[in-house]
Order: sequence, then C-alpha cells, then structure tokens
Amino acid sequence: MNINGKHYHTIWLKEDDPTVVQIIDQRHLPHKFIIEDLKTADEVARAIKDMHIRGAGLVGATAGFGMYISALNARADSFMRQLVADGEQLKATRPTAVNLAWAVDRQLGALSAAKDAGHQAQIKVALETAQAIADEDAEFCRRIGEHGVSIIEEISKAKNGDVVNILTHCNAGWLAFVDYGSATAPMYAAHDKGIKIHIWVDETRPRNQGARLTAWELGQHGVPHTVIADNVGGHLMQHGLVDLVITGTDRTTYTGDVGNKIGTYLKALAAKDNGVPFYTALPSSTFDWIMRDGVKEIPIEQRGGEEVKYIQGKHEGEIKAVLLTPENSPAANYAFDVTPARLVTGLITERGICEASETGVLGLYPEKKN
Amino acid sequence: MNINGKHYHTIWLKEDDPTVVQIIDQRHLPHKFIIEDLKTADEVARAIKDMHIRGAGLVGATAGFGMYISALNARADSFMRQLVADGEQLKATRPTAVNLAWAVDRQLGALSAAKDAGHQAQIKVALETAQAIADEDAEFCRRIGEHGVSIIEEISKAKNGDVVNILTHCNAGWLAFVDYGSATAPMYAAHDKGIKIHIWVDETRPRNQGARLTAWELGQHGVPHTVIADNVGGHLMQHGLVDLVITGTDRTTYTGDVGNKIGTYLKALAAKDNGVPFYTALPSSTFDWIMRDGVKEIPIEQRGGEEVKYIQGKHEGEIKAVLLTPENSPAANYAFDVTPARLVTGLITERGICEASETGVLGLYPEKKN
Repeated sequence: MNINGKHYHTIWLKEDDPTVVQIIDQRHLPHKFIIEDLKTADEVARAIKDMHIRGAGLVGATAGFGMYISALNARADSFMRQLVADGEQLKATRPTAVNLAWAVDRQLGALSAAKDAGHQAQIKVALETAQAIADEDAEFCRRIGEHGVSIIEEISKAKNGDVVNILTHCNAGWLAFVDYGSATAPMYAAHDKGIKIHIWVDETRPRNQGARLTAWELGQHGVPHTVIADNVGGHLMQHGLVDLVITGTDRTTYTGDVGNKIGTYLKALAAKDNGVPFYTALPSSTFDWIMRDGVKEIPIEQRGGEEVKYIQGKHEGEIKAVLLTPENSPAANYAFDVTPARLVTGLITERGICEASETGVLGLYPEKKN
Repeated sequence: MNINGKHYHTIWLKEDDPTVVQIIDQRHLPHKFIIEDLKTADEVARAIKDMHIRGAGLVGATAGFGMYISALNARADSFMRQLVADGEQLKATRPTAVNLAWAVDRQLGALSAAKDAGHQAQIKVALETAQAIADEDAEFCRRIGEHGVSIIEEISKAKNGDVVNILTHCNAGWLAFVDYGSATAPMYAAHDKGIKIHIWVDETRPRNQGARLTAWELGQHGVPHTVIADNVGGHLMQHGLVDLVITGTDRTTYTGDVGNKIGTYLKALAAKDNGVPFYTALPSSTFDWIMRDGVKEIPIEQRGGEEVKYIQGKHEGEIKAVLLTPENSPAANYAFDVTPARLVTGLITERGICEASETGVLGLYPEKKN
C-alpha cells in the first residue's frame, strides 16, 4: 500500500545492505513515520516484544527475517544450535501469536533440510525462506481481499449502492501484515472497485491500534472512516448503523474459535444480538490445527498495567505519555480474548469463505484432516 | 465520603457565604483537587454542560442549587419568568439525564406554590428545595447500599468468604451523587461490613470516568480495585473472574430498559452470555415513568469528536491533552447506550431490589401505576 504516494511493504531488506532488515517502527504512528534497522536476532526479538511491529502476519514475517539475521550472525561450528536458541527467543516474545512459532519452525525445517549444503548455502536458504514467508503473506492477503469483497458487494447491492458501514477492531490492516492486511483487504478491494464503504474504527484500548494505525492506513488510502471508542459498537448495531463486522485474528482454532485483540468478543456478542454478520479474515498460517476449545486453550498474554495507566499521544509536536489513573491504582492488561465459533458468521481465508466450524474449516483445508 | 480523611459532599453552600454554591471540579481529578465557586445560573449551566460535575444524582442536585442561585439573582418583577428561562437553560445542558428536568421542575413547582408569599420567601423555598433534593439524594443512595449489600453478602457466603469480584462501568459513585453513590453504595456498604470485595473498574472511554473518578474514590476509601480497559470485561467473565456487575444509570424506563454510559450494553451482553448477575442501582428520581421502549425512545447525547481524539492526563505534574489519532481522521462520540431489560438481572432502588420489568418496578412504586 502507499504512504504519501510511495509504495511500501511493512518489512524489507535495506536497499544498499541486504544484511539489514528494515521495518516501520509503528510505535510512532500516526504522528511520526520512522524506519528502523534490525541487525541482530536480539534486535528483532525486542522489536517484536516491544511492539515496534505487531499483527499476526507481520510478526510471522519478522520472525522469518529474524531467523535469516540469526543465520547471518551464527558461527559455522554451532550454526543450528544458535538458530534453535534464537528461534526459542523469538517464539517467547508474544505467546498468543501462532504465526510466530509457525515462521520459526518453517525456517528451522528449511535449514535442517539444507544442513548438508553448508553454512553459506543455509544462509541463502534462510533468506529465501524469509522472503517466501513475506511474499506468501502478501499474496494470501490479496486473495482474502478478492474473496471478502463479495460479502461487501452483496450488502451494497441490497442497499442499492448506499454506503456499506463496516466495523473493525484493532489493526488487522496492511500494517499488521506485509501488504493489504486481513480484515482490511476486503475493504481496500471494495474501495478500489468503487463500492461506497465507510469504516467504524474501534480505537482499541489500551494500545489504540485502531485509533493510531487503522485510522492512519485507511486515511492514507483515502477510505472514509470514523474513529469510535470501543464502547460504541453495540449502540451503533442496535440502531442499524453497522452492516458488517470484519476483524482479524491472532490465532483461530480449526473449530472456528477466534483469538483476537481484547474486546473482539464483546463486538461479536453485539453483532449476534442485532443480526449483524461478523466475519474474521485470516491467512491459513493463523489457524491452530491442534486446539479444539479456543476459550479454554488459547493462551492469553498479560502485559504490564502501565500500558493501561499511561497513554501516548502528540502534544505540541512531541509524543508524550500521560497518566490517566490515580498514581496508586493498579491496572490489569489482558491483551486478547476468544470469540466462540457460535458467534462468528464466517471465516474469510485465502482459499475462500467458510463457516466457523470444524466442518467449514476442514472443507477448505482437507489436507489438515488429521 | 472522605477525601484525605475529611468528610465531603459533592456540592454544598460556601461556609461563610450562602449565596455561593461550591462543587469539586471533577475535570481535574484524580490529579488535582479543585473546589469551584458557582455564583450565577450561567455558571451552573456551564458547570453541568462542560462536565465540571456529572452523574445522574449530582446533575440533579446541581440543577436544584442552580435554581436557588437563579432565584437569588432574579428581579422581583420578573421572578418566575427568569426562573422558567434559567430552568430551560439548565434542562438543555445534558439531554439524556432525567434527573436534570426532574430537579428543575420540582423547584418550579415549589416556587409556583409559594408565589403569593413574595420574592424573599420564594428564595428561601428555593434554598430549602435545593437542600432537600441533595439530602434525599444522599439518603436514597444510603438505602441503595443497604439493599444492595445483601446481593454481595450472598455471593460472599457462597464463596466461603473469598473475595467477591464486582465489575462496574463509568462512575456511578459518590462523585456522581451527593454521597455514597448508586452502583458504589453496595460496595462501600460491603467493604465497611468487612466483606472482602475487589472492584474491576472499567476505564470508560472516551472521558475515562472509571479510570479517573471511580478508581480515585475507591482508593480514597481503601476499597481494593483494578483498572481495566473497557475491552476486558468479557474475557474476565468467560474465565469466572467476575461474580457480579453493578452499574448506575442516567435514565431507566419503568419497563426496565437501562440508559447508561456508552458501553454498558456490551457488558450486559457478556454478563448474560456467562451467567453473571447484572444489576443496575438507581434512586427512583432516575426512572422515566413515560417511556416504554428505552432503545427506541431514550435520547442519546452525541458529544464532540475531539473528546475521542484527544485525551487528558498528567505529564510531569501538569494536566495535558494528547492527540491519539491522525489529525485528519474524524471521530464520533455517542455518550450513552441502552441496555434492554432482558439483559438486566435486577434494579437496586432506595425501596429495595426488583426485577427489571414493568411488573417489578411498579411493584415497588405502586403510586406510579398510571
């Protein structure tokens, strides 16, 4: 997608130095556009853990490039040992994101398979694998857009071309992937086709990924949108002001339970209560093929309470953090929740749209049947 | 309740000058404790409209004192005309709060009844009526606490004295009334009885009344509490971490539909989905005896989008507003929503606890049957 008219991915190799990975440090958006160099596996782990980058697809792609950087820096005589250790460090940064372990394991598999080819060849394999993970991510999101736009198109027709109002939570946008986004891919596809849409952007406390990132990227692409507090969606749905909800996910079980940013479950309840279709968009790398019961089994990251007590924003041109609560009040910070499949109308994947159920998911991915 | 060990109401006459009404300017809490003098009806209207004070009971009590100030300042030859005009101005400040119109009309009724007694006697009536409104508010809240504590006591017994976890949204606390609060009255009563409780305090975007006010007043009284983002309650309920929800209300229909701070409906949906009891506490002045269908009929105030885009907090000792969103992204700001009676376990009133239904409410208030 474009930033000030220039096309970007969210992660890439530095133009004049392919040993350096570059990312957009998203902590400064929407106020400042800062590109960061990553040169060591530690720097990559920190960038993931401290959320310089975030989002299911981009966390996976960054872990993929992190393993390439690890390979570049590993000693030939302890190559695989170092890669396994760096992989463990990367996996430990964000417990909920399934793409993270998936990308690390894919790299370890590829490197193991190439272990007889020698150290230099393995570095090349790591680079190719990292780029393949990133390219697939972008291509899968493009296809999610192709499939998902049909849902928007149908609502638009039923409304005789009137604006289709879509609510989204958090940022499952271009910035959360390598390109297009998951939840946003159908929106961008619809907008580019000339279908009139308007996006209700949940601000998504405590880290405000909606207010900061989704609003920013929709604005850059010219998609009409309005930022709302997370509390507002239910009221809008009660009054017919939402035609469709599309969210992303950090981990979805093959039975259709959707782990996503905290608060998603509340929006799904409101959608159900008001007959509003609720879709989750995801590339298949985000499926968990083992867990049956998402509410019981998906691990929920707890982050520091200071993310709730302090909030960052722009004041007189500078980014500052202000204290919202009494100094002494404690705060809890659960980062994700799980929306049971019964509340999910359907899943939009790179292979098409399916019911949020074991039958639906395995119908699209029959090779996962065991 | 106490602030730094000293007992306060939220509104009172200045000690050495009974022509001046004093309030706590709640916009500066929890960071600064500032007392404001109100000397004209315009100042009172501004204090309500710009939310120096807020909350169902306190808005009513402030309107009551506003009418007293209006009486003090009105010319004898156009006394009632001025009072009616000032009353209209007060009523127009906050469209959703039913206590506002109720307090103004009660003053106009009392003043009309005393119209033959002369101008000075009417001023005295206005003062007595204002004080009666405030005293009744405090007394009704005290009784709400007496009735509501039984619900907490029962859960505590069922948990063998383990901590009872109560979630609340917004500030229906002491600061929203003259004393005790509505939703908080049972909590303070339980705490004072030695029942172990812990309060999950929804931060309540966009104005953060929970994070700023509820956390502050619970902290001042020593009640254990934790601030959470508004997104978190559903997850907590899914995992058995909430035993009870108690909220306040700005307007409740006699059929049991609860108009309250935006986002209440989402918590009620989650409570229903997880079998968690959901109670609303209110003095009877908050009932609307005319409206049947709260979702359709209760007017919902829309405030400026800048309340969503900017947020205030403390930075290096100063209160500053920081921008959260891109400069150009629009924001919408619906201040209330309506929770249908079917999601409400019961109403806690000064007369006792009843079902959230016409039968339940009119059972407690039989005199309202027509």
